[in-house]
Amino acid sequence: MPAYKLAARQEQSSNTQIKIPSRNGEISIGTGSCTIIAGPCSVESRKKYLEIAMLIKDMGVHILRGGAYKPRTSPYSFAGLEEEGLKILAEAREITGLPVVTEVLDPRDLDKVMYYCDIIQIGSRNMQNFSLLKEVGRSRKPVILKRGLAATVEEWLLACEYILNAGNDKVILCERGIRTFEKMMRNTVDIAAVALVKELSHLPVLVDPSHGTGRRSLVAPVARAAIAAGADGLMIEVHQNPEQALSDGEQSLTPAMFASLAQDIRKMEQLQVS
Amino acid sequence: MPAYKLAARQEQSSNTQIKIPSRNGEISIGTGSCTIIAGPCSVESRKKYLEIAMLIKDMGVHILRGGAYKPRTSPYSFAGLEEEGLKILAEAREITGLPVVTEVLDPRDLDKVMYYCDIIQIGSRNMQNFSLLKEVGRSRKPVILKRGLAATVEEWLLACEYILNAGNDKVILCERGIRTFEKMMRNTVDIAAVALVKELSHLPVLVDPSHGTGRRSLVAPVARAAIAAGADGLMIEVHQNPEQALSDGEQSLTPAMFASLAQDIRKMEQLQVS
Amino acid sequence: MPAYKLAARQEQSSNTQIKIPSRNGEISIGTGSCTIIAGPCSVESRKKYLEIAMLIKDMGVHILRGGAYKPRTSPYSFAGLEEEGLKILAEAREITGLPVVTEVLDPRDLDKVMYYCDIIQIGSRNMQNFSLLKEVGRSRKPVILKRGLAATVEEWLLACEYILNAGNDKVILCERGIRTFEKMMRNTVDIAAVALVKELSHLPVLVDPSHGTGRRSLVAPVARAAIAAGADGLMIEVHQNPEQALSDGEQSLTPAMFASLAQDIRKMEQLQVS
Amino acid sequence: MPAYKLAARQEQSSNTQIKIPSRNGEISIGTGSCTIIAGPCSVESRKKYLEIAMLIKDMGVHILRGGAYKPRTSPYSFAGLEEEGLKILAEAREITGLPVVTEVLDPRDLDKVMYYCDIIQIGSRNMQNFSLLKEVGRSRKPVILKRGLAATVEEWLLACEYILNAGNDKVILCERGIRTFEKMMRNTVDIAAVALVKELSHLPVLVDPSHGTGRRSLVAPVARAAIAAGADGLMIEVHQNPEQALSDGEQSLTPAMFASLAQDIRKMEQLQVS
Repeated sequence: MPAYKLAARQEQSSNTQIKIPSRNGEISIGTGSCTIIAGPCSVESRKKYLEIAMLIKDMGVHILRGGAYKPRTSPYSFAGLEEEGLKILAEAREITGLPVVTEVLDPRDLDKVMYYCDIIQIGSRNMQNFSLLKEVGRSRKPVILKRGLAATVEEWLLACEYILNAGNDKVILCERGIRTFEKMMRNTVDIAAVALVKELSHLPVLVDPSHGTGRRSLVAPVARAAIAAGADGLMIEVHQNPEQALSDGEQSLTPAMFASLAQDIRKMEQLQVS
Repeated sequence: MPAYKLAARQEQSSNTQIKIPSRNGEISIGTGSCTIIAGPCSVESRKKYLEIAMLIKDMGVHILRGGAYKPRTSPYSFAGLEEEGLKILAEAREITGLPVVTEVLDPRDLDKVMYYCDIIQIGSRNMQNFSLLKEVGRSRKPVILKRGLAATVEEWLLACEYILNAGNDKVILCERGIRTFEKMMRNTVDIAAVALVKELSHLPVLVDPSHGTGRRSLVAPVARAAIAAGADGLMIEVHQNPEQALSDGEQSLTPAMFASLAQDIRKMEQLQVS
Repeated sequence: MPAYKLAARQEQSSNTQIKIPSRNGEISIGTGSCTIIAGPCSVESRKKYLEIAMLIKDMGVHILRGGAYKPRTSPYSFAGLEEEGLKILAEAREITGLPVVTEVLDPRDLDKVMYYCDIIQIGSRNMQNFSLLKEVGRSRKPVILKRGLAATVEEWLLACEYILNAGNDKVILCERGIRTFEKMMRNTVDIAAVALVKELSHLPVLVDPSHGTGRRSLVAPVARAAIAAGADGLMIEVHQNPEQALSDGEQSLTPAMFASLAQDIRKMEQLQVS
Repeated sequence: MPAYKLAARQEQSSNTQIKIPSRNGEISIGTGSCTIIAGPCSVESRKKYLEIAMLIKDMGVHILRGGAYKPRTSPYSFAGLEEEGLKILAEAREITGLPVVTEVLDPRDLDKVMYYCDIIQIGSRNMQNFSLLKEVGRSRKPVILKRGLAATVEEWLLACEYILNAGNDKVILCERGIRTFEKMMRNTVDIAAVALVKELSHLPVLVDPSHGTGRRSLVAPVARAAIAAGADGLMIEVHQNPEQALSDGEQSLTPAMFASLAQDIRKMEQLQVS
């Protein structure tokens, strides 16, 4: 038995499926088809967020994303609209019928985030913020747990174990690239970790090729690779005008690029491989 | 001007000195002599903590350390005595006259930690826990900010900038090893980063050779190297019985080894190098 | 213009196709379909090599691999059969009609390797063995240049430039995993580098998921991911009895596993994605 | 017994001392005092090399360095004067009485290098060039074996074992920084590896703070740290006019900076630490 117990494949041989209620019908993550989460890095304004949400809502996206609390390396960078951003996300859900996910940074903001959103995201920098993990573990909301920048697969599963052990069994893992010496990409997507986690654990795994590469041109090939490696879904940054994004513009797709990628993914799902 | 501003050498050409009041007289970090912080990884029990504190108090230690809230990779590991641990630290201070430092993991525990302890430590895993950084930034207690496992020097200084920018100018940096591919040591101490930070910033820098190497036999040579590279102090794990420590036993010195190291450091301080 | 010139996409907008003559007709690498190179890590004996060659020759393999000169971390490990191994490779080619590739470690062995084999491999450890690069650059044989364990994509393309600049334009790149902190896999396959190299250069790119992961169970998913990311081919270790292999047993597929993977790859080729 | 045998401390408990004959008397590496190897990165011209050699010869340097065959990332960079460079090194030895060390890249150049020079250097990129290791192992010249960019300490000792096992017992190890994610320094000097190698092996260990940091301002503090950690010597790049150096200018000391560092090192040697 590995050090993580509840997350282990030995604990549960069937794949965990996580259900997200939505006005358009329940969304299930972990059923074998690819769940697509898309949206801009940050909620920059009500107008811009609702606009992008409307643009992409019929392009194959299942869940909308957008940051209200942004973890920024510098205290002088735009750090999100906070509660106002949460309200905009809730409004976008109202208009599109799609569930919304956003990141929480502080255990004291968790109630607010849960009130407005459908899925809670724990970001890479907080993968070992154990008090935050325990707090989301006490909730019953689905949680996306991103892999830490320099976390081993075992540490990632143990971080996940904090949430499971606190009582919340709705954890979705997300590979978003690890830090290496390579300078031409923001991070290095560890594609084999996707298959390894599917082997070691029963939980669903997503891939975020936007943060994973930091280069727009690499998002589609890495997204396709993720599906081919067995990922249960994707998180993709899309912006109506990437050049003017307040954060992560270089890695955001345009709506047209996203539509084309979503079609490729649909084709890949029809493949029957072992 | 670099992205960090208040931390930058350009902002202040003289070295910042951080003063810690103590019954035995004020301790100053950053004055050119080596401040030694020592103690066990965790406060394991009242009896054991007071015993080790008494054993080392006259061996050249300036500040006592001990974890009350422990960030553990697995939720099933010993995670510290929490508030009870804080009280034991305060009692050790009472008995020895030495100030105490302990790590805080959750912004909601900060008031308690500040009530009982003299210095707050932000650990490696929380270096980019921005809500915790802002919270300690609003206090006036000295803060030791450990470098993240995979943080660049610039990111470390920007994390420090969060604290400074929130109003607390008493930040002490601590290099504790970064994560690399090397398997025979727990981490890789980045000794050049000590000299680089002294060049880029006016803030004091410590080195933690215990976490930095994870091997008892390497603690003394790396501690000496740290002083030779310009570090303002050291954090050293000492345990009366390392084999039975509840955490980090392999990297803890015995009191006798610590006494010998403290003597070496005193000799090194007398060297006049450029 | 980047620092590499002849390798750059700016130098040649169309994809380079590398042709390998063979008794069964010419093999072209870089035409859009997936070239499969397979065989055991080492040529262990004439009997075993011919046996595995016959077992897999009709399973979709285009080129046979097998090490005659093995770069081994320890001087006490099995280092290959040397010239005898080359002769066995040539005999396997005779019997199967498939071209053969093998690694060269020393410029003084190059003539022999070129005499017996169809493709020369420069291994990861020799990616910056510049005298070897210049020497194969003076030949006219196709060369597979594996990425160094800790080489950036730019360094890899510059190593390739040594070969091109010496006059040999038949270079095939091969991503085989980089070294990171992860302990559960031998290396970390940098899947985005495949797409990045296709963007920056006109040369074909293979992926080696066997060395890339070091775990048999991960070879197939990573192979599929490589194709989805745009790789021009795969190098796969196959052994009739992986448990008894003299090297790399844990990452070798059985012939049955290989046959199943080859079928998946054929299905993936029929996908029309952007 | 570890995988390396002849290099292991278990094989020989006393420290190996390597003797280099010289006109001014024998130089011993590994005796407890610090051997200083200094000179420019490359031999750029006869005039410039003899000039710098004369400038530094009385500043405490024991051995002169200078590259005649330069391993350059790009085929379009200056790659050394080759045999002409070797002759200049021999002339500098004649004039100064100091032994000279230079790097060899190709086994076919080894005889020439041995003819002109006193110590052979195997560079970082060739640490696992096994045919080169075996070839220098068949010679009887002292060899400096630099650690590979991404080599573990065990792999480094096993590379060393290739030389020892081929019959040459005069191996000097040299830590020159490993590759990490840090961007403000060229490499990360692994100072604890110095102490670890002294514990695991009986062979002498040098540190190269010039390549190790890539920043002139960090060379002196890291050099001092190396001595404090137990290194047997240093390799330092010195150039009469670093701004105009054909390679590695940013990390080269001026003669005045070097003189000051050499004095600091003499002071540190007088310290008696455990």
